[in-house]
Amino acid sequence: MQIQYIFELAGTAFFAISGALAANQKSQPDWFGVTFIGFITAIGGGSIRDMLLGSYPLVWIGDVRFLYAIFAGVLLASLFYNQLQKLRKTLFIFDTFGIALFTIIGTEKALLLGVNPLIAAIMGMFSAIMGGVIRDVLTNETPVLFHKEIYATACLAGAFCYLLLHYFDCDRTVSFLLSGLAILLIRIIAVKFNVSLPKFRKEGTD
Amino acid sequence: MQIQYIFELAGTAFFAISGALAANQKSQPDWFGVTFIGFITAIGGGSIRDMLLGSYPLVWIGDVRFLYAIFAGVLLASLFYNQLQKLRKTLFIFDTFGIALFTIIGTEKALLLGVNPLIAAIMGMFSAIMGGVIRDVLTNETPVLFHKEIYATACLAGAFCYLLLHYFDCDRTVSFLLSGLAILLIRIIAVKFNVSLPKFRKEGTD
Amino acid sequence: MQIQYIFELAGTAFFAISGALAANQKSQPDWFGVTFIGFITAIGGGSIRDMLLGSYPLVWIGDVRFLYAIFAGVLLASLFYNQLQKLRKTLFIFDTFGIALFTIIGTEKALLLGVNPLIAAIMGMFSAIMGGVIRDVLTNETPVLFHKEIYATACLAGAFCYLLLHYFDCDRTVSFLLSGLAILLIRIIAVKFNVSLPKFRKEGTD
Repeated sequence: MQIQYIFELAGTAFFAISGALAANQKSQPDWFGVTFIGFITAIGGGSIRDMLLGSYPLVWIGDVRFLYAIFAGVLLASLFYNQLQKLRKTLFIFDTFGIALFTIIGTEKALLLGVNPLIAAIMGMFSAIMGGVIRDVLTNETPVLFHKEIYATACLAGAFCYLLLHYFDCDRTVSFLLSGLAILLIRIIAVKFNVSLPKFRKEGTD
Repeated sequence: MQIQYIFELAGTAFFAISGALAANQKSQPDWFGVTFIGFITAIGGGSIRDMLLGSYPLVWIGDVRFLYAIFAGVLLASLFYNQLQKLRKTLFIFDTFGIALFTIIGTEKALLLGVNPLIAAIMGMFSAIMGGVIRDVLTNETPVLFHKEIYATACLAGAFCYLLLHYFDCDRTVSFLLSGLAILLIRIIAVKFNVSLPKFRKEGTD
Repeated sequence: MQIQYIFELAGTAFFAISGALAANQKSQPDWFGVTFIGFITAIGGGSIRDMLLGSYPLVWIGDVRFLYAIFAGVLLASLFYNQLQKLRKTLFIFDTFGIALFTIIGTEKALLLGVNPLIAAIMGMFSAIMGGVIRDVLTNETPVLFHKEIYATACLAGAFCYLLLHYFDCDRTVSFLLSGLAILLIRIIAVKFNVSLPKFRKEGTD
């Protein structure tokens, strides 16, 4: 539990870094704007999940350390801006690590609250992607989940993997690691080989 | 009650179809994107209503059959894509049927939760239109309710009709049918005769 | 308390006026659209705050007079449209007055609900700015808080001022007035002298 808590704080800081870096590329907002976007990216997914589930208090409202993690993330993004931008390819793996972590934590939390496993998987995915979706909506961009690379689908797949292992009473830590690994692998393969889901409908087909 | 439940599931499936068809026209998202948009369109309005009212669990979180209805809707939209696109004019009537249904269900639910009738009417309207609003925000379009044809206003009028009948202790089924019919008629007349509400202020008027 | 309640209603009406005027400039929506935007601008911030805190019922759902205040605001915006547009510069001070009021009310409410002071300050700021943010998202504009003038930051500063005075057991009315005044002054100075926060990162810097 202690380790999961530290991971959760680290994941929050990482989401804030990734939000701050994304924020700065286009519209060059000021310090407040960047911190706000980092904040939304980091807490948006978990907040949507908990508000949908009616699970109060929200994690970051009940525990102020998540705010400190976000401020630390934005500060790091400022101090090491150039290095981090150069590391984008490496960062993508960290980003995926954060997404994997949040998906499994979210799925587990929803399960503990007693919802249907299918709903729990959706809640896990929401925890991971909704922060980025709100960020994109606020900055007037098309949300990341409509881009072609497999992204939210990887989260869903990992959540189902966790549910399956959970169903067979697999050890919690093992389930956690295996299903997180599944998300990492799917995402890395998708980006590396430029895999995308089939289109719903081709334009001009009859 | 049993009949209302079946209608509610059918209405959810229909909203998912309409969301999936709308999603596909512009940005050609993949299967995940289309399902996501169908899902948001179907559950968005009811979720906003319940989160505003603090009524937990949300309908689709407490009853997984609403998810199945959404998946069925998206699948139908894919299988009969061309036929459905050709049927757009007929579909408009189904769409209006769904909006009417959700408005009255939402108004009734809010009333049962003890809010002021005026608030209940707004909640009814939100149930019907907010799914489409969130869909439009996510896909970067101007929300449907700012377009000229009478749309949300028809929902509000139907909700007030329901409140009036409810106030005079009219039979529930009769109130339900009459106020739903009111929404259908207002909307059909508005589209057929291209009726719109007056502008708030004409450009260039002094 | 009585005076605060009247101020809160007046602030709500004022936000509705400012929303209705903003709504009308670009897309010329109809009466429904303008009322909807005025409504969202007025209740958005407080609703977000209360939904994040899980504090039910939302203010405007538990007390229908807030709706009446909004309708009155939209009506006033229509009746005195030209005069109000000419008064824009003066209006800016009223707008800032509304923001100051909502910030302090929001901060105080969050504190009473027992959250960490830092979270309470964020909730105060959210009360003031989130209505405008939702309005901007719905009308497809870049949210006001990413524009250059100091805006949300002034709210945060005022909230911290209130927290400080509260911490030193200062009289509630005095704390209220002083911290509201702080927001007003910061905002007026920022607009008058075109002060903005430093950019997070200059373009092209290495």
